[in-house]
Amino acid sequence: MQVDITLNPLENRQYTVFIDELNTLSFDCKVLIVTNTTVGALHSAHLQNLIKAREVHTLILKDGEVYKNLESLSEILNACFEHKLDRKSLLIALGGGVIGDMTGFAASIYLRGIDFIQIPTTLLAQVDASVGGKTGINNAYGKNLIGSFWQPRAVYCESAFLKTLPAREFAAGIAEIIKMAVTFDRPFFEWLETHDVRESAHLKYAIHKSICIKANVVACDETEQGIRAVLNYGHTFAHVIEHQTHYTGFLHGEAVAIGMVMANALSCNVGLLTQEEARRIQNLLERYDLPTTYDIASLEAFYTAFFLDKKSANDAITFILAQGIGAHQMRKDIPKETVLEALKAFHA
Amino acid sequence: MQVDITLNPLENRQYTVFIDELNTLSFDCKVLIVTNTTVGALHSAHLQNLIKAREVHTLILKDGEVYKNLESLSEILNACFEHKLDRKSLLIALGGGVIGDMTGFAASIYLRGIDFIQIPTTLLAQVDASVGGKTGINNAYGKNLIGSFWQPRAVYCESAFLKTLPAREFAAGIAEIIKMAVTFDRPFFEWLETHDVRESAHLKYAIHKSICIKANVVACDETEQGIRAVLNYGHTFAHVIEHQTHYTGFLHGEAVAIGMVMANALSCNVGLLTQEEARRIQNLLERYDLPTTYDIASLEAFYTAFFLDKKSANDAITFILAQGIGAHQMRKDIPKETVLEALKAFHA
Repeated sequence: MQVDITLNPLENRQYTVFIDELNTLSFDCKVLIVTNTTVGALHSAHLQNLIKAREVHTLILKDGEVYKNLESLSEILNACFEHKLDRKSLLIALGGGVIGDMTGFAASIYLRGIDFIQIPTTLLAQVDASVGGKTGINNAYGKNLIGSFWQPRAVYCESAFLKTLPAREFAAGIAEIIKMAVTFDRPFFEWLETHDVRESAHLKYAIHKSICIKANVVACDETEQGIRAVLNYGHTFAHVIEHQTHYTGFLHGEAVAIGMVMANALSCNVGLLTQEEARRIQNLLERYDLPTTYDIASLEAFYTAFFLDKKSANDAITFILAQGIGAHQMRKDIPKETVLEALKAFHA
Repeated sequence: MQVDITLNPLENRQYTVFIDELNTLSFDCKVLIVTNTTVGALHSAHLQNLIKAREVHTLILKDGEVYKNLESLSEILNACFEHKLDRKSLLIALGGGVIGDMTGFAASIYLRGIDFIQIPTTLLAQVDASVGGKTGINNAYGKNLIGSFWQPRAVYCESAFLKTLPAREFAAGIAEIIKMAVTFDRPFFEWLETHDVRESAHLKYAIHKSICIKANVVACDETEQGIRAVLNYGHTFAHVIEHQTHYTGFLHGEAVAIGMVMANALSCNVGLLTQEEARRIQNLLERYDLPTTYDIASLEAFYTAFFLDKKSANDAITFILAQGIGAHQMRKDIPKETVLEALKAFHA
């Protein structure tokens, strides 16, 4: 199964996401696999056996979002220099979103840009990070504030890798699948309500469907000037939650689940969503044991934290709201009082 | 006077290089001017007076190629964060190639890419660095090994800025002008033989002509897959000279002048250039007091150092050679012995 990602038909820029089609990979160049301690122990030997290339090197980084920083980026770049990778060499990111984002960023700036391939090993990375070409690192000012748009040469999503995934991380990936359905595809949402994606045949369908939705969005808007911002549904709130919990309280997908429930409260208050629709979305999240509540200590502090987010241009916050199930609105006109009112239910 | 740079007509990516047309600049966003101590003292007050924007900030970095590193890049990025620049904000590079390359690189990775404008204040930066979108920093492994391709929104070349330029730096810029003429434009070379570009009317013509030549090359090959490599005429040798003299012995344009003479010796030996043509090129360089000799301590060490250069893919060195005056050849087939033979004249 595969999905073709077309970014600029005029420029002939495209690549393919392969689902469960990873076989022997042959390259006439040097290859550096970048992975982390956890994924490396589970899967890197298998991957190395599949690769035929001039040289194959492996760099193993520490595991965790906390290491998605300039130091790890420098480690990748230094490994490129040590192994004398040239402009025709290839990086392979084997891991979740953190490994993918950092490896893609390194590929985009090493010798002003070399190719990379993504082999995402988490559900979140397969359905979200693998499509769209966003790369980056975190710093003291926030998440992904330094980075680039750099598209992979190809992406290989293997459902077999997901068997070793902890249940919480698996659920965090499902949050992003639900996000796609709520904002873009009502029939897919209804399908999700009646199918358990923990079953492997259903999972493969859900991954394929999510990638197709995201591929369409990214094809229209590679660098997030417009519709691509809709993918941030739930994220405006999630980023504040993650910031306040120092990126340790929740997995990203978990924070997004809470963020969607918060966004839905706002949607209901401005008349875009019924209470019943909001309830259905929350039920679906809870079926996968995703968190849907958060104690906001100070509404003012929570609101102020929106402005730390880079998505705010010239001090206007854009809220992505579900308009019923399967559609969306981007709203820049919502008064502060309306936002605070919607968040009251989360106030401790 | 202006030159339109068209990168991808299908994608409608283009910008303009304005020559002596800098007037009031108005922007509906925040602006951060990046400059260095030397240029800032001479020109930043004047520039600030010309800019109308929401906020105008200025960051002054230390002056010199030795500061073209990760620390200075971080300084620029931190200033962006401190002033809360958003995706619609603008960086302005006021300075030579070092400031332009670092500011452009910072613009390319801040929030995954924001706009920047170049105001080059050296002749070298006006005729070379201002067109082409190459950005980058140096590190322990070499020059410009980390960077990106990122095009400016506009470039303003002001000949008035060149009046404060030291004579050596001025001459270093002329070396790049001569480079363009030798490889691409025989009539321009002959014009250079009969006109002194230190006269301001001639200078403006030479700047305009050089930018036009480079614009044509870059339009054909933005990311240096092919013809753009011709702009590296003289550079393969110059990089080794700069490396061996720790980037302190020669200005970049001076090293390129020597590199052209070395490349010409090789051209003569493989029958592409006559001794008389090589002599004419050297005469033109020497008329501007550019260096044309260098003592190679060890021919073997010099040759080995070619391989440190990133332009070498899969261990084949590409030599850019003048084919007569006004044309060029890219050669990957020249045996080591032939190269060493040509360099013997420079052996101490």
